Amino acid sequence: MVEAEQPQKVEQWGTFEVALGGPSRGNPFAEVELKAQFTLGERTVGVDGFYDGEGTYRVRFMPDAPGEWTYATTSSQPELDGRRGTLRCVPPSPGNHGPVRVADTYHFRYADGTPYYPFGTTCYAWIHQEEALQEQTLETLASAPFNKVRMCVFPKDYVYNRNEPPRYPFVRLPDETSDFDRPDPAFFRHLERRVTDLLALGIEADLILFHPYDRWGYSKMSARQDFRYLRYVVTRLAPYRNVWWSMANEYDFLLERKPMEQWDLFFRIVGQHDPYGHLCSIHNGSLDMNYDHTRPWISHVCIQNPDVKRARAWRQAYGKPVIDDECEYEGNIPLPWGNISARELVHRTWVMVANGGYAGHGETYLHPQDILWWSKGGILHGESWKRIGFLREIMESGPGPLEPLEESWVWTRVSGAGHGDYRLIYFGEHQPGGWRFGLPRGVAFQADVIDTWEMTIETLPGTYRAEDEIPLPGRPWMALRLRPLLGEAP
Amino acid sequence: MVEAEQPQKVEQWGTFEVALGGPSRGNPFAEVELKAQFTLGERTVGVDGFYDGEGTYRVRFMPDAPGEWTYATTSSQPELDGRRGTLRCVPPSPGNHGPVRVADTYHFRYADGTPYYPFGTTCYAWIHQEEALQEQTLETLASAPFNKVRMCVFPKDYVYNRNEPPRYPFVRLPDETSDFDRPDPAFFRHLERRVTDLLALGIEADLILFHPYDRWGYSKMSARQDFRYLRYVVTRLAPYRNVWWSMANEYDFLLERKPMEQWDLFFRIVGQHDPYGHLCSIHNGSLDMNYDHTRPWISHVCIQNPDVKRARAWRQAYGKPVIDDECEYEGNIPLPWGNISARELVHRTWVMVANGGYAGHGETYLHPQDILWWSKGGILHGESWKRIGFLREIMESGPGPLEPLEESWVWTRVSGAGHGDYRLIYFGEHQPGGWRFGLPRGVAFQADVIDTWEMTIETLPGTYRAEDEIPLPGRPWMALRLRPLLGEAP
Repeated sequence: MVEAEQPQKVEQWGTFEVALGGPSRGNPFAEVELKAQFTLGERTVGVDGFYDGEGTYRVRFMPDAPGEWTYATTSSQPELDGRRGTLRCVPPSPGNHGPVRVADTYHFRYADGTPYYPFGTTCYAWIHQEEALQEQTLETLASAPFNKVRMCVFPKDYVYNRNEPPRYPFVRLPDETSDFDRPDPAFFRHLERRVTDLLALGIEADLILFHPYDRWGYSKMSARQDFRYLRYVVTRLAPYRNVWWSMANEYDFLLERKPMEQWDLFFRIVGQHDPYGHLCSIHNGSLDMNYDHTRPWISHVCIQNPDVKRARAWRQAYGKPVIDDECEYEGNIPLPWGNISARELVHRTWVMVANGGYAGHGETYLHPQDILWWSKGGILHGESWKRIGFLREIMESGPGPLEPLEESWVWTRVSGAGHGDYRLIYFGEHQPGGWRFGLPRGVAFQADVIDTWEMTIETLPGTYRAEDEIPLPGRPWMALRLRPLLGEAP
Repeated sequence: MVEAEQPQKVEQWGTFEVALGGPSRGNPFAEVELKAQFTLGERTVGVDGFYDGEGTYRVRFMPDAPGEWTYATTSSQPELDGRRGTLRCVPPSPGNHGPVRVADTYHFRYADGTPYYPFGTTCYAWIHQEEALQEQTLETLASAPFNKVRMCVFPKDYVYNRNEPPRYPFVRLPDETSDFDRPDPAFFRHLERRVTDLLALGIEADLILFHPYDRWGYSKMSARQDFRYLRYVVTRLAPYRNVWWSMANEYDFLLERKPMEQWDLFFRIVGQHDPYGHLCSIHNGSLDMNYDHTRPWISHVCIQNPDVKRARAWRQAYGKPVIDDECEYEGNIPLPWGNISARELVHRTWVMVANGGYAGHGETYLHPQDILWWSKGGILHGESWKRIGFLREIMESGPGPLEPLEESWVWTRVSGAGHGDYRLIYFGEHQPGGWRFGLPRGVAFQADVIDTWEMTIETLPGTYRAEDEIPLPGRPWMALRLRPLLGEAP
C-alpha cells in the first residue's frame, strides 16, 4: 500500500523518515526485523528500519540524488511488510554540501565537491549535561570556528564528569541497572536532536560509539549486546549527513574485554548497516597503541599523540587523511594530556596543517563547577580557539588541500606544505630573519608574513622568486604564505 | 742519562713535559719514532713523544697519582733513546679535579669524584679567528656558565665563516696548498695554548678532529695521512686533562671518502695513543644517521637532534651518557638548525636534563661582520645562556645526577627525573594548576616552584607528601623541585 498521494519532499542529503505502526509486545528491538529498499531508476539502496518505542517503527533514508525515489519495506511482521511509498528528492538548499568524504588520499571534501578542512573540538559528554548547559554549548559552537565535534553516545564517568546523565541509552530497571537489550528511544531521539542541531550549525558530529569511562555497564555489555547496540545506533544515525563514526575513544583501554577481533567485527557491522559509507575511524589511548589504520574499513586516521612533528610519518604509514584529534588540550588540570598552553595548541595545530594533516582542539581549564569544555561544553575559556579559527580562514581562502613539501633536512625541522605553487610554511619555535627554502620555482609570487598568535597577515611589498630570500621578522610563531601570481611569465 | 738533579714538580693531572734535541733532517714527523715509559712503583704508562719542529722533540705526560715518577725514552734515533728522568707529582691544586670520566652509566664525574654536569657551548672555529677575537671569546667564556666548548682542530670553511685562518695545521707550500705529511708545530702550540686557556677557566675542550667544512683539503687527506694526523694531535693534546675527543662533526657527510671501517680504525688509533682514556664520541649530521654509540670505543653519546623528548629512548638505546650537543641553536639565520628562539633552547635543555641527559648551547644570530658565536666566538647576543647557567646552578646544588622517573604515560608528556627522593620535574609547554605525579613516597618534602625563564625559585610554604597535590601557577615553562626533608619520620 502507498502511504500518501503527495510524495514527501526531501532535499538531497536530507533525512527522509516514515513512521509505521507495529507490534509492541515482547522485545521489538531484538525480535522484529524491518528493512526497506529505496529505488531511483536503476539504483536501489537497502536500509534498516528501527523500533522507536510504543508500537512505532521508523524507516529513515538519506537520498544522495534528486528525483522520485520509491521505497518498499520487508519485515518479519505482516503489518510492517510490503509498505510502499515515494519521496521526491530535491536539490540541496544552500549550506547543505552533503556528507564529508575522503578526497585526494589525504584530505576531505563534501559530497558536492566543496573542500572540507577539519577543525574540530572535543565535548565528549555535552549531550549528557542539563538542558541549559547543552543550549549554552550550542550557542558557543555557533560563534566558534569548529566544524566538527567529537562526542560520546554513552554517558561518561571520568574525572570532572561524575554527574549522573539526564537520560540513559538503555531502559533503566528499578534497581538502577540497565536492560542492555532495550535501548531507550527517548535517549536516541535526544541524540538525534543534538546531531541535527550541529548539522544546522554546519558542524560534523564525530560520534564515539564506545568508550571506557563508564560506571553503568556500557563498556561491559556482552558481545551480542554490543552488536545489537551498534546496529541500532548506526541505523538511527546514519541518515544524518553530518555523522562520522568514531568506533571508540581509547579503544586499547577496552582490549581486555573486547579483543582486537571484536573491533574488526564492529567495523563490519557498522559497514553493513550504514549504506552511506560515513567516515569511520578509531582513537587510541596509549601513545604507542595506535590502531592499524591501514585496514580497509578505516577511512581516515584518528590519533592521540602530542608529537605532531610525526605528521608526515603518519601520512606515509597509513596512506589516509590524518587527524591528530588529541594532541593534548589547552588547559591547566594536573593531568598532563590536559594542560598545554594555548600557544602550544595553536602551534601543534599549525604543525599538523603545514605537514598535510589536521588537528583537533580541546579545552580543560579547572572550573569551580567542573564545567570543562572538553567534557561538558559550556563556554570557551581559552585562547587557542580564535587562532585555530584564523588558521581555518587561511585554509579556506587558499587554493586547496596542502601536501607536505618534498622531504629534505629542512622539513624535518620546520613545517612546509603546498598546493601547486602555493605555499604555507610554518616556523613555530624557529625564528629565521629570512627564508629561502621550498619557494615555488619559475613563478613570481607574493609573500604574506603571518603572525599565528597575533593573527595578523602582512603582505610584503613587491614580488619574489625562488632565488630570493624573503625577509622575516626573526621572532617565533610566524608563518609564511606564498601566493603565485597567475599570468605572469616566469 | 738523567735530565736534572732536582725533579720537575707537576701536580696530579697536570702536564709534565720534557724537551729533547734530535734530528731535523728529512721528515721527522713521519720518520722518527719516540716513546717513553713513565713508572710509579708497579705502574708503567707508555706515551708517545712528538716532533715540535726545529730539532726539538717533546715527551708529555699527565700523571694521575702523586709520587715520584721516573721515565725512560726509546727511539729510533740514538740521541732520543734511553733518556731518563724523574718527576715529582704533587696533589692537585684547588680547582683541578682531573679529567672528566663517565660515572653511574649515564653521567659524568671528574677523576677526583666531583660531579660534572656538562653544559657546553659551540664555538667551532674560535681559535681560527684573529687574536683579539679569540681573547674576547675567552673573556666571554670567563663569565658565561659553560663548562665545555665544542671546537674544531681544523679551520672551517662554511657559511658565515669564509675568512682565511691565521694559522694552518700543516705546512703551507708556495702554491697555497698544504703538505699534509708535515704538521705545523706553531699551529698545534696555538691549539694547546687555547686548550690550556680553557682549562684555566674550568672548561672542557671537546676537540673535533675531523669535519666536512673544508676548502684546504683537510677532509680529503689520504687514509695514511689521516692516521698520522690523528696520532700527532692525540699525542700532543692527550696530556691536557680537559680534552675530550669528538672524532668528527657530521661524520656522515664524510662517509663517501671515509667509509665506516675507517672511522672504526680512527677510534682505535685514538685509543692507542691516548693512555688516559679521554672521553670520546662522534657527532652526526643527518638526523637519522646517528652513529652506533653502543660501540666500545664510544664513551658517551653525542647527538644532533631537535627532538629532545627522545632523551629516554637514546639512553636506553645506547646505555651511555647522552649529550644532545646540537638540539638546534638560538638565533635567526635562515638555516633551520640555527634559528630557534632562546625560550626554545632553554626548554630543550631542560627537557634533556629532566630526562637524565644533557644538552649543548649554540648561538647563531646574524651579525654585520658575520661574527656568529657558534663559529667565531666573540660575545653572546642571546637570552638562553643565562637560563642555562641557572639550570647548571640548580644541578650543581642538587644531590647528584638525575635518573628519569619510572616510565609511565605521564613521563611521555612531561619530563621528570630524580636522585633518591629528590625530584626535578619540568613542565615546559604544559601549565598544570597543580601536580601529583612522581612525588617521592614515604617522606615529607619541600617544594620549590621554578620559573625556568624568569630564573626565580619560590619555595612553597609547609611540607608535602606523596598523597598531596602541589599547587602550581598554571603557566608554561615552569619546573618543580622536590627536596626530601631528612630525618623526618615518614
